Amino acid sequence: MMTNETNNQTNLKAIVMSGMRSTGSLHLGHYMGVLKNWVLLQHQHTCYFMVADWHALTTKYDDTAGIPNYRIETVLDWLAAGLDPEKCVIYIQSQIPEIAELHLLLSMMIPVKWLETDPTLKDMITLKKAGEAGAGEELNYGLLGYPVLQTADILTVGGSLVPVGKDQLAHLEISRDIARRFNHVVGQSVFHEPRPLLTETSLLLGLDGRKMSKSYNNTVFLKESEDETWLKVKTAITDANRLRKTDAGNPEACVAVFPWYQIFADKTEQATVAEECRAGTRGCMDCKKQLAERVNETMKPLRERRKLFEADLPAVDRILASGKEKAQHQAQQTLQQVRSVLNLN
Amino acid sequence: MMTNETNNQTNLKAIVMSGMRSTGSLHLGHYMGVLKNWVLLQHQHTCYFMVADWHALTTKYDDTAGIPNYRIETVLDWLAAGLDPEKCVIYIQSQIPEIAELHLLLSMMIPVKWLETDPTLKDMITLKKAGEAGAGEELNYGLLGYPVLQTADILTVGGSLVPVGKDQLAHLEISRDIARRFNHVVGQSVFHEPRPLLTETSLLLGLDGRKMSKSYNNTVFLKESEDETWLKVKTAITDANRLRKTDAGNPEACVAVFPWYQIFADKTEQATVAEECRAGTRGCMDCKKQLAERVNETMKPLRERRKLFEADLPAVDRILASGKEKAQHQAQQTLQQVRSVLNLN
Repeated sequence: MMTNETNNQTNLKAIVMSGMRSTGSLHLGHYMGVLKNWVLLQHQHTCYFMVADWHALTTKYDDTAGIPNYRIETVLDWLAAGLDPEKCVIYIQSQIPEIAELHLLLSMMIPVKWLETDPTLKDMITLKKAGEAGAGEELNYGLLGYPVLQTADILTVGGSLVPVGKDQLAHLEISRDIARRFNHVVGQSVFHEPRPLLTETSLLLGLDGRKMSKSYNNTVFLKESEDETWLKVKTAITDANRLRKTDAGNPEACVAVFPWYQIFADKTEQATVAEECRAGTRGCMDCKKQLAERVNETMKPLRERRKLFEADLPAVDRILASGKEKAQHQAQQTLQQVRSVLNLN
Repeated sequence: MMTNETNNQTNLKAIVMSGMRSTGSLHLGHYMGVLKNWVLLQHQHTCYFMVADWHALTTKYDDTAGIPNYRIETVLDWLAAGLDPEKCVIYIQSQIPEIAELHLLLSMMIPVKWLETDPTLKDMITLKKAGEAGAGEELNYGLLGYPVLQTADILTVGGSLVPVGKDQLAHLEISRDIARRFNHVVGQSVFHEPRPLLTETSLLLGLDGRKMSKSYNNTVFLKESEDETWLKVKTAITDANRLRKTDAGNPEACVAVFPWYQIFADKTEQATVAEECRAGTRGCMDCKKQLAERVNETMKPLRERRKLFEADLPAVDRILASGKEKAQHQAQQTLQQVRSVLNLN
């Protein structure tokens, strides 16, 4: 999953920080694109993984009823994916008030111009306009400051490496700028400039060929069952030009099923599937059935882990309490230093 | 000092909140325009008075070395002016992290447009350009959000009344808008919309007739001695057309001395001074000597109180520790409720 191009230069003691906005249940796209990588990283670095419930407010401030449930669902999905609370720190953003304090202090030094031209803002506004992120057309102060909060998230726990895909490199640039600005203003190297940990993302498109998204109903959620998975995969769009099972198909023109095989099946199986499709000896429905099996195989250990944690929610609470304690310990040290260099002690 | 036009409608249990940016020693203008009123208010309401050290960063983030000293000087000036820690809560903004948290949460709901058009921002930018508030020409994110932080200051301790002069009414308007917006978004009346407590300010111009300001060296600081006061008052500009002591003077044309009598002397003395000036029986230098005596009389109890506290700085620390505890107790209750209505508990 992870290329080593930046990793080689990395101090082994580097602290990895990443997070996700808690806006609902996670799906296969999150697993393939993000979580699988986090699971690897937890064995290589000190890792802080944060449920970003404050960030969820930047666009959903007027619809917060789901937050408690989304928060726990996110953590269950993470644990299901294989995050091990013995190996990484899992915590809730809003439980670390030091993040809000650092956000405020950083805000004093960051030109509005930097924020207005930041690609993160453009992406968020696009999300809002697409109706995926609710709450009217106005640009709110907190949304404008999204990158400041994101940077506070990273720096509060001493994050120096942030796993990102190539398309997100620009998003981290402003965090580097903000850290550099702070160090420059106080004349001391208080913060690492967080570096990207490049990830070769496995881009999994939705079952209709569009971007995978809850609102398109074109994906499988990590919490869904084998049967639900089959019902979803059954709807996948294949090669529109292939009308009968015995027609010769074209895997390259197959909208979703063959691309999913390329993620979920091994090379040998991929070759067989492509061959049989081209020869017209494999019908699309059979092909989907087999794909659903592959997906379900991949998901099996996740479902088993999820079941264990679902049956013991107090254990999840303990994980979050312990994560809070560890993250806050680090956060307090950071803020102590920040207050000191700003003469606020 | 205080008109009763709004006061009459006021719940007696109303909480008064106000603060000052800690950017240096306070002068007679602060005493006459603000502190004298606070001293009255502490006997009528529950009062929270906050040393705004975070606010000082909005414009002075690159020059924080003075903060610890400014902070203590501000508190000494307040105590000298007569604030009684048994009657009001005196605390330091940066010691109440709940303010930063509320600032962040409010930021999610406040349109950038409200802030761009707010008069507070214009005033702050003017201060910056005048070189009084340092730190370059850029508009920083924190400066844009000044009114959000100011509102968080008020609402965190449950403030419902904010003492302001007529010229500052507009500054409070946005805090009312922000409180209303929050209540509307969450569909509950969590916050009072803070109301102005109109103050008839005694506008004391500087000894050169300009706005009283540290940078013009045209004022007397509360910490200055009787002799220093005399040396300052001696430089006051009078009536430029009066060349000799025996010339008939014109109190209405006197730039600073007669206006100061109107603040520091009683009506009888004001009348005598004006009469003798017009008759040419009173020289400007004698007139200033007498004025310095009046100022020193007013300042005498302040100097005595200041001396006591200067000699016992640990007592000041205890006052601030107790103020922190009281303000934080209130702040925690507020944030508990805010988190709850935003489903962040």
